[in-house]
Amino acid sequence: MSDMCVEVGAAALQNPFVKQMVVQLRAMDSYGTYDTWGDEKVLDPMILTKARRREIPVVGDPDEVVVSRVKAYYNAIAVRVEQECGLMAVPMINLTHEGFGRALIMVGKLVVVDKALRDVHRFGFDSVDKLDAEGEKLVARALGTIEKFRAAAED
Amino acid sequence: MSDMCVEVGAAALQNPFVKQMVVQLRAMDSYGTYDTWGDEKVLDPMILTKARRREIPVVGDPDEVVVSRVKAYYNAIAVRVEQECGLMAVPMINLTHEGFGRALIMVGKLVVVDKALRDVHRFGFDSVDKLDAEGEKLVARALGTIEKFRAAAED
Repeated sequence: MSDMCVEVGAAALQNPFVKQMVVQLRAMDSYGTYDTWGDEKVLDPMILTKARRREIPVVGDPDEVVVSRVKAYYNAIAVRVEQECGLMAVPMINLTHEGFGRALIMVGKLVVVDKALRDVHRFGFDSVDKLDAEGEKLVARALGTIEKFRAAAED
Repeated sequence: MSDMCVEVGAAALQNPFVKQMVVQLRAMDSYGTYDTWGDEKVLDPMILTKARRREIPVVGDPDEVVVSRVKAYYNAIAVRVEQECGLMAVPMINLTHEGFGRALIMVGKLVVVDKALRDVHRFGFDSVDKLDAEGEKLVARALGTIEKFRAAAED
């Protein structure tokens, strides 16, 4: 990965989901490596353009760094759900070492996000706009589910 | 562990939860070791009497066999819930290598069992009656939750 894929000052960087994504990625940087980095550089590895994708083998085990990005992504969705509905949202991720599994977000007794995970070693998005759109789509769907089964979410 | 803790022909062995527990434990025995064993012998390691508990260190990592017992236990609960309510129940277990984590059972979009797991290397029950009572308690509570939020469970 030579060139950066996220433009400095891209409009999407101001969107609430992308902002939260940066917060979550920075939170996982326990050695302070990102401290001097701009948001673009922190987000950059989340973006897998076609060229980048070609460089990753089709079959492979995800390493710790990729898994931490998946966790950051679902944490960001959980935080966004919390911000919108005011109820606590809890993410839970189950992954085999081969990169297959399941991601859940629960609000009260309600499962508001339930995604099958596969080929996690190739986890990433075409662009920042795509990342934002995908994330917000899950948030919107979660909020719809909460609206529908409010009592279970508040239990 | 020298002597067996489960009496041959104990009444509890006929209870639906204990029966399902045996089915689940046998299902995990991929080499057919249990084929010649009676149900009492298969169930035996699930029982931790005070004497047996004393032999296990207070702090320790659970091995694969103990983890498979925990999975068998929650599988059995899920099957019992399914039998009673006619809806599919899905167990999901998250464990760190240190034996801390969480066990969930979901029916549709509803979380019907949500248990914090800790000290999994000491997982077990005082007696078969206790195992049966604990299991059926979780089943009954799950069915109550489904009754309360039927629409979310059927979604």
